Amino acid sequence: MSNQVTNTSSRSAILLIHCPDRQGLVAAITEFIYKNEGNIIFLEQHVDSDQEIFFMRVEWDLGKFSVPTEKIGEYFQTLIAEKYNMKWTLYFSDYTPRMAIFVSKLSHCLYDILSRIQAEEWNVEVPLIVSNHAELEEVAEKFGIDFHVTPNVKDDKQKAEKEQLALLNNYNIDFVVLARYMQILSDNFVSHYPNKIINIHHSFLPAFPGARPYHSAYERGVKIIGATSHYVTPELDAGPIIEQSVVGVSHKDSVEDLIRKGRDLEKAVLSKAIWYHLERKILVYGNRTLIFD
Amino acid sequence: MSNQVTNTSSRSAILLIHCPDRQGLVAAITEFIYKNEGNIIFLEQHVDSDQEIFFMRVEWDLGKFSVPTEKIGEYFQTLIAEKYNMKWTLYFSDYTPRMAIFVSKLSHCLYDILSRIQAEEWNVEVPLIVSNHAELEEVAEKFGIDFHVTPNVKDDKQKAEKEQLALLNNYNIDFVVLARYMQILSDNFVSHYPNKIINIHHSFLPAFPGARPYHSAYERGVKIIGATSHYVTPELDAGPIIEQSVVGVSHKDSVEDLIRKGRDLEKAVLSKAIWYHLERKILVYGNRTLIFD
Amino acid sequence: MSNQVTNTSSRSAILLIHCPDRQGLVAAITEFIYKNEGNIIFLEQHVDSDQEIFFMRVEWDLGKFSVPTEKIGEYFQTLIAEKYNMKWTLYFSDYTPRMAIFVSKLSHCLYDILSRIQAEEWNVEVPLIVSNHAELEEVAEKFGIDFHVTPNVKDDKQKAEKEQLALLNNYNIDFVVLARYMQILSDNFVSHYPNKIINIHHSFLPAFPGARPYHSAYERGVKIIGATSHYVTPELDAGPIIEQSVVGVSHKDSVEDLIRKGRDLEKAVLSKAIWYHLERKILVYGNRTLIFD
Amino acid sequence: MSNQVTNTSSRSAILLIHCPDRQGLVAAITEFIYKNEGNIIFLEQHVDSDQEIFFMRVEWDLGKFSVPTEKIGEYFQTLIAEKYNMKWTLYFSDYTPRMAIFVSKLSHCLYDILSRIQAEEWNVEVPLIVSNHAELEEVAEKFGIDFHVTPNVKDDKQKAEKEQLALLNNYNIDFVVLARYMQILSDNFVSHYPNKIINIHHSFLPAFPGARPYHSAYERGVKIIGATSHYVTPELDAGPIIEQSVVGVSHKDSVEDLIRKGRDLEKAVLSKAIWYHLERKILVYGNRTLIFD
Repeated sequence: MSNQVTNTSSRSAILLIHCPDRQGLVAAITEFIYKNEGNIIFLEQHVDSDQEIFFMRVEWDLGKFSVPTEKIGEYFQTLIAEKYNMKWTLYFSDYTPRMAIFVSKLSHCLYDILSRIQAEEWNVEVPLIVSNHAELEEVAEKFGIDFHVTPNVKDDKQKAEKEQLALLNNYNIDFVVLARYMQILSDNFVSHYPNKIINIHHSFLPAFPGARPYHSAYERGVKIIGATSHYVTPELDAGPIIEQSVVGVSHKDSVEDLIRKGRDLEKAVLSKAIWYHLERKILVYGNRTLIFD
Repeated sequence: MSNQVTNTSSRSAILLIHCPDRQGLVAAITEFIYKNEGNIIFLEQHVDSDQEIFFMRVEWDLGKFSVPTEKIGEYFQTLIAEKYNMKWTLYFSDYTPRMAIFVSKLSHCLYDILSRIQAEEWNVEVPLIVSNHAELEEVAEKFGIDFHVTPNVKDDKQKAEKEQLALLNNYNIDFVVLARYMQILSDNFVSHYPNKIINIHHSFLPAFPGARPYHSAYERGVKIIGATSHYVTPELDAGPIIEQSVVGVSHKDSVEDLIRKGRDLEKAVLSKAIWYHLERKILVYGNRTLIFD
Repeated sequence: MSNQVTNTSSRSAILLIHCPDRQGLVAAITEFIYKNEGNIIFLEQHVDSDQEIFFMRVEWDLGKFSVPTEKIGEYFQTLIAEKYNMKWTLYFSDYTPRMAIFVSKLSHCLYDILSRIQAEEWNVEVPLIVSNHAELEEVAEKFGIDFHVTPNVKDDKQKAEKEQLALLNNYNIDFVVLARYMQILSDNFVSHYPNKIINIHHSFLPAFPGARPYHSAYERGVKIIGATSHYVTPELDAGPIIEQSVVGVSHKDSVEDLIRKGRDLEKAVLSKAIWYHLERKILVYGNRTLIFD
Repeated sequence: MSNQVTNTSSRSAILLIHCPDRQGLVAAITEFIYKNEGNIIFLEQHVDSDQEIFFMRVEWDLGKFSVPTEKIGEYFQTLIAEKYNMKWTLYFSDYTPRMAIFVSKLSHCLYDILSRIQAEEWNVEVPLIVSNHAELEEVAEKFGIDFHVTPNVKDDKQKAEKEQLALLNNYNIDFVVLARYMQILSDNFVSHYPNKIINIHHSFLPAFPGARPYHSAYERGVKIIGATSHYVTPELDAGPIIEQSVVGVSHKDSVEDLIRKGRDLEKAVLSKAIWYHLERKILVYGNRTLIFD
C-alpha cells in the first residue's frame, strides 16, 4: 500500500489491486471513480478461480477528478479498500521514476536502454550507473550519466553492497535494473528493493539457471534459446518472471553464435520488462506476475 | 442487438457492448450485474480515444442471478443500454452453436476442425458439411456428418447458393466456416450471415489477396509467409481480420514447400479464429475486430 | 552403416555422413557422384570445429547413375568411406518407410498424423497403431489401420513390451512414433530402435521434464510454454532434440488453457519431427541432432 | 565478378557463385580448393530446379592455400568459372568493409548499429554518417564519427545526391545503410551502388509499401505488423528482401503503439540484414536473395 504523490498537476491515476474475490468489487471500485468525476481510460480485471483472488488494474483521467491527488489513497483506503480487505498500489502518470543501472563489462543491454532514454521512449530518469568494473565508464560519459565503480573485494561483498545502497539512497532511486550485472546480490540487498530490481537472465528459465547458460544450451542441443527478465528475489534466478522471448538455433550455431543471437534477445527482453514496470502494468502476486498489457 | 436465449439453466452470460464513450459506463454496467446478484468472471473494456468509442466484454456467473435468463436482454436494454445508446449482444455459455463447414478439395483444415470436435475441444455442433466437389465426402462419413454437394453450374452461381442457403436454414446453422472453400460468395449470400462467415486466406493479408498467394510470395522473395482468418464481407479478402500467423521461409523453399508450410499455418489460424468466435471473444466494429483474449 | 535397398527403380539417393575432418572430403564425395553420372540435387556440409568432425548430407539424382542401386553402398564404402573412416547411412527416395504409432488416450497428435497420411502429405505407410488403452480404437478404425491394445499389467511392463516388439516385427516397422503415449519404455525396448523412436514431450525441454509439465509451468509463472520432439534414449526426456516450438501465455491462462494451447504445439512439433525423419534430414551425433533443412 | 584483395595475410576466402546447372559443378569447385591445399569451412549449394540455376557459397581456410591471395580470382576464373559460365564474387574475411549510414531524425536504428560497432560485434568500419537534417549530429559525435548534412533543397534533389556521392567516394565507402532515412534515392544514385544499399522499411512488405505504413496497418486492423530489410532498387520498396520479422498487435494498440513496437522490429531487422551482408551470406539473383545462413 504505497502511495507516490507528486506536487505537479497529474494526468492520470493507476490503481493495482488484489483481494479475496467476492461479488460487487468492480462495481464498488468503478463507482468510487465515477462518483468523483474520474473517467476510466483502461480497466482490466482477473479472477484466479483456484485461489479465489481478485486482481484489477484501473487507470483513470484526473482532469476533473474531485478528490485532491494527495488524498486519493487515503479516501480509497477508507471508503473501499478496508471493506474488501484490498491490497493496492496507487501511481500517478506524471511522476517520473528514477532508475539505476547495474552493469559489469557487457554493453549491449546498457546501450539499448540508454538509446531509449535519449530518444525519450520512456518516462524515466537515469541519474546513476553502478558497476563492479571500470570498462563501461565511457558509455556512461557519452550519455552524461554518473558512473560509480564499487569493486568486489574478495570475501567482502558486504562492503560493495553497502556503498551501492548508499548510492541508491543518495540518488533517490526508485528501482534498479541489472543489465547483465554479473554479481549475485545478497538477501539483505534484495530486501531493500522488493519487486524493484529487474534482472535479465540469458536463458529460457527455468531451463539453464546459473552461469554459462549458452554453453549448457549448446551441450543439450536445444533448437530454441531464450532470455528471461524477472524481479530479483533471494533465490537465484527464481523470482517472478516478467518477460521471456526466444529465437531458433541450429546445429550450425556454435556457442559463440548462441551468445551473439542471445545478446539481441537479452536487450529486447530486458527493455520490454522495464517498459512494463514503468507503465505500472505489473502486479506481483506470490512468485508470479500479472502483466496488464 | 441479438439475444440468444436457451431454456436450459445457464451457467454464465456474456455481454459484448459498444457505445459513445462517457463517464460512468463501467460503473453502470457492473452495478446492474452486482445489484442482481451476478458475479463477474471476466471483464475487459477498451476505449478508442480517437473515435471516443467505449467497448466492453463482461462475463458473469448466472448461478444466483436474480433476473430470469429470458429477461436479461430486455432489462439490460431498458435499464442501461437505452440511456447510453449502447449496441450490445448477449450470449449464454450453455448454448451450443451450430456450425456448417464449406470445403472444396483440400482436407487439412477440415480434419483439424473435425478432430477437435471429436475430442470435444470446443462447445459446438457440426451437423453439415457443404462442398462444390464430392472428394471430401469420405471424410464427412468418417465423422458421421451430413455432406451435401452443391455443384457450381457455369454461369449459375445463384443456383448453388440458393441450395446452400436452404441447407443452412434447414440445419438451423448459426455460422459458417469456409475451410479452404474455393468459391467466392455473392454479396447476397454474405448479407444473410453478417460477421458469421469465417474464411481462411492463405496469405498474410493485405499482402497477396486473391488467387495463388503462395506463388506470388515466392515470386516476391519474401522471407516470411502467413495466413489470415477473417469474417467474410462483400469485398474479397477485405473483411475484419480475426487471426493471423506466420512462418519463416528461405530460398531453399520451392512454391510446393510454401504450400506445405502454409497448410500448417492455415489450419492453426482457422481453428484459432473459430475458437475465438465460439468463446464470444470477438467484437466487430467497422472493419476491425476486438479480440478480448 | 545401414543400407536400405529397394528393388524398384529409384529416383534419388541420400547419404548422411560423418567422419574426422580433413582436407578434400567434399571433393572426394562429390567426385564419386560426378564420375558415376550422378547429379547433385542438394548438398550441405558442416564442420564441428571444436571436435573436428565433418558432417554432410548429399542427395543426388539416380536417373543416369552408373552404379547399380544395390551396389552403391558397397562401392562407396570401398572407394571412399574406408579411406576417410566415414560413418554413413544411405537412403533411397523411392523406399516408403513403415511407421507404427503408439498412443494412450489423447487423440490430437494421432489425428494430425493420420490426416496427413490421408492427404498424402508424407511418403510413409502406417499399418499399425498400438495403445495401452482401448479409447482410440475408433480413430484407428476410421482410417482403416490395425489397432492393438497391449495393456499394462502392474509390475509386468515386460509382458506388454514383448507383445509390442513382436507386433513391430510382424508389421515390418521401420520406426515408431510416440503420439502422447504415456508409458516409459524400458532400456531394452529402446535398444531395439536406436534413433528410431520419436517422442513428443509437452514442455520446452530441458525445462519441466517428467510428468505434468503444464502444471509446473503454471506454478513457475512462465510467459512462454513449449513442446519438444526428440529421439527416445534410455534416460527419460533426455534424448537428441529434433524440433521445438513455443507459444506465449499470460496470467489469464489457467492450467487448462496451457493444456489447450500446448495441444496445438504438440501436434505441430511432432508432425514436423516426423517429416524431418521421413525426409532423411536428421543426422544424430552424440546427443545432438543436425537437421539439414 | 568483383574481387576484393587485401595485402594483409588473409584467413579465409568466400566464393559466391551462380551458373546454369549441370553435373559436376560441386566436384569441380571443391577439387580446385582441395588441389590447392584449401580446407573447406562451410559449403552450401542450392539448385533452382525450375530455372535450372546452380548457386553456391563456399568458404575455405587460406592458411596453407597454395595460390597467392591476389591470384585466386584470376585462377578460379581461368580454370573453373569460364568453363561453366559462372558468375562469382570473391571475398576475404580479413578485409574490413567500410559502411556509411544515412539517417533523418529517428535515432533507434542508428544507436543499435553504433552500439554494435562499439562492442565490436561486427567486422566493419563506419567513418561516415549522412543526414538531410542536423538532429542526430550529437549521436555521431558521441561515437566520434564524421557527420555531414546534405540538406534537401526543394526541387533540387540532384544537388544533395551529388554531395552524397562525393562523400561516399571520398570516404572510400563500400556500402550504404539507410537507417530510417526518409528520402527516396534517385535511380542514378542507386545505380552507383547495386545491391550495396540496405534499407529498412517499416512494414511487412509487400503489405503497406510507401509512407505511413503503421497508419495503414492500423486502419486495416491487422493482427501482426512487420519490418522488412531489402536492397534498394529503382522501384520503391520493391528490391530484393534480405530479412523480415513480425510482432503481434491487438485492438488495444493505437497507431503510437504500433510505431513503438515497430521501432524494436526495425532495428533488429536492419541489424540482422547488415550482419548477413558483412558475413557475405547474401547472393542476389533476379529480385530475390539467397541467404546462406
